[in-house]
Amino acid sequence: MTASIITIGDELLIGQVVNTNGAYIADALNKVGVSVKNILTIGDIQIDIFHTFRKEFFKNDIVISTGGLGPTHDDITKKTLCKFFKTKLVQNEEVKANVERILAMRDMKWTAAAEEQTFVPAGCKIIPNKHGTAPGMLFERDSKFFIALPGVPYEMKEMMNQFVVPFLLNFNKGRTILHRTLCTTGITEAFLSELIGDIDELIPQSGTSLAFLPSPTGVRLRISATGDSYENVSKIISEVENQIRLKINNYIYGTDKDELEEVLGKLLSERNLTIAVAESCTGGLIADRLTDVPGSSKYFERGIVTYSNRSKIELLSVPENLITKHGAVSEEVAKAMAVGIRESSNADIGISTTGIAGPTGATPEKPLGLVWIGYSDSKNLIAKKFLFGDDRVRVKIRSSQAAMELVRKIILNIQI
Amino acid sequence: MTASIITIGDELLIGQVVNTNGAYIADALNKVGVSVKNILTIGDIQIDIFHTFRKEFFKNDIVISTGGLGPTHDDITKKTLCKFFKTKLVQNEEVKANVERILAMRDMKWTAAAEEQTFVPAGCKIIPNKHGTAPGMLFERDSKFFIALPGVPYEMKEMMNQFVVPFLLNFNKGRTILHRTLCTTGITEAFLSELIGDIDELIPQSGTSLAFLPSPTGVRLRISATGDSYENVSKIISEVENQIRLKINNYIYGTDKDELEEVLGKLLSERNLTIAVAESCTGGLIADRLTDVPGSSKYFERGIVTYSNRSKIELLSVPENLITKHGAVSEEVAKAMAVGIRESSNADIGISTTGIAGPTGATPEKPLGLVWIGYSDSKNLIAKKFLFGDDRVRVKIRSSQAAMELVRKIILNIQI
Repeated sequence: MTASIITIGDELLIGQVVNTNGAYIADALNKVGVSVKNILTIGDIQIDIFHTFRKEFFKNDIVISTGGLGPTHDDITKKTLCKFFKTKLVQNEEVKANVERILAMRDMKWTAAAEEQTFVPAGCKIIPNKHGTAPGMLFERDSKFFIALPGVPYEMKEMMNQFVVPFLLNFNKGRTILHRTLCTTGITEAFLSELIGDIDELIPQSGTSLAFLPSPTGVRLRISATGDSYENVSKIISEVENQIRLKINNYIYGTDKDELEEVLGKLLSERNLTIAVAESCTGGLIADRLTDVPGSSKYFERGIVTYSNRSKIELLSVPENLITKHGAVSEEVAKAMAVGIRESSNADIGISTTGIAGPTGATPEKPLGLVWIGYSDSKNLIAKKFLFGDDRVRVKIRSSQAAMELVRKIILNIQI
Repeated sequence: MTASIITIGDELLIGQVVNTNGAYIADALNKVGVSVKNILTIGDIQIDIFHTFRKEFFKNDIVISTGGLGPTHDDITKKTLCKFFKTKLVQNEEVKANVERILAMRDMKWTAAAEEQTFVPAGCKIIPNKHGTAPGMLFERDSKFFIALPGVPYEMKEMMNQFVVPFLLNFNKGRTILHRTLCTTGITEAFLSELIGDIDELIPQSGTSLAFLPSPTGVRLRISATGDSYENVSKIISEVENQIRLKINNYIYGTDKDELEEVLGKLLSERNLTIAVAESCTGGLIADRLTDVPGSSKYFERGIVTYSNRSKIELLSVPENLITKHGAVSEEVAKAMAVGIRESSNADIGISTTGIAGPTGATPEKPLGLVWIGYSDSKNLIAKKFLFGDDRVRVKIRSSQAAMELVRKIILNIQI
């Protein structure tokens, strides 16, 4: 089965909002074996919407649209759907009950806009919206499916998971597509490519491919394969993965959607280790990432963001003369911060960052992007130097990734 | 002038990577008066790429593509461009020099992949890539422009800013489109809509529109207008903005791309105030957001992430019996944390968060998403209660936004 995803909204075409819905739906469809042919973003113009619906519904088995279902005047998807499926809007009791429930929950009164939400094209199946007033709609024609969802990501995701994915699983008797992603960090695309060597030797099967996906947190390697059964395709993927791991395993911190903070959290949790963080240039980002993981209170003891020299001295017991002599961005201060946070918190591991995130503060000896990362446990005291470029937020992201990767490698006895 | 943006890459169609390039380019094009008609995402399939190029270049004045220019084997945009413009690849000395520079900078040696990067379609103009080896390309045919850029966001952005935007500014003699966005927080879309009232009364001009854009940090209101001159369009936008501000000004923290952390940073800076943050449920996110702003070291004194009760007691002097009696998530503890961080840091303002981010930790009295935010300065001590839903990361985002908004409102004497 093939699909087209159509995301509707002027806000997407003026660049005000990044289209995360497209990626989310594409991921969900792929997992149920539906091959996404394209993701199209168009504006709130009825004629464009209509023609795009017609063309994509002709070419594909499934069309999923998002956006244009809200109560505000610029939302015209419902009207266009009526025109497209030659039907008209009728009030739906199930939808009305849901709108009433949502309004009651938010202590809001009934309005004309609310009333409008209860009307849907006759003949469609309703996809319930747990978190909002705009219902989703499913149309079936000639064994093809048209699914219209609201554009609010939170609402759309719930509807994909609760309704669309289970629904499509029933219909997908087609071929199997599988992907496996190996997440690496601390190594460039070019160097990875060199270590891996000739890709054609790795993937002799047709229908199998390897892609390099770079980002500020590292390069991901995606292996894709297609075939007639889950077993066969899984086998091909595992073989390629094993070949790659033989060459670059130390750089791989996780697979698929793994985030380094989850991987590290799991490691800390399994080994009953606690961690505390002293951040200067990362400004709280490491703590924020670590605490994004459910259950992180088990191993995350505390974090201190010491932006001022005074706070480094007061909270981490960094000797003042160390800062005077070597500067706040130095190997010595990074080490003192790591020791300071570990000892004051009683955690097993202390990590620290100090660097020049920019745009100001650089000197000829200490350029923008210079970062020292410190690590301390009962046996080791290490500081590593990095150069992370001239973009403030990227320096923060890359530093947070390098600090967590340093801890992962030390725990696993991987050479740093 | 109209444009189509074509983002190429299988990774975008399986949902592995969110398409941020589309939004970035759309924003840049809008600012130079180019109207973006669509953003199309297609896979690494030559025939799809070719047909999409042909169709969009026929319909629009400008096509911008991203992706498929890297040295790895799945990158086929260059070959497709040769076929499309009926030309062939030739080695380019300017590109070669850049590839040599990049490799030298990274201490890497010359490879076959590097050699391949130096070949470009004959007859195109090179768009220099400061941060990478893949050059951009500009083709001109019949006063239309085809621009191919690499998919790595960091590289693409630099090339848009340094080359594409200045280049297009020269050619845009067309109509003016302007947008103005009012950023609100702490109020729902429906309630905003009610306060604003009849939208058609606000925007009598044809070609003028108002859109509501909800997100976890708040609802943005976008006013759009078109006309024949910058002056006329600016005037329309300002009139609509003034009308809206009369009704909802207290909820508006900024305009256009403003982030609350920037707005608050500017306020603190102007008034010579310093701030310190004690975070429990937000886990460092407030400190991270505040320190994303260049120059924040001027007013951000320190941040403490007190995930454990022990750290609340040790670092913030929260009385142990307060936690025992009321629980860590309580008005009393939020207040004690805010006072504790302010007094220990000597900052002018102390803020605190304590809540149940989930997925565990809820009780019948203290549901998931319950958050107390504390505020302390030399005159005020306040704690406010919020209910932020059942998604961990959303609770963190909404709490960080509400805490910063509380500070903004108190500084500006707006009723909270």
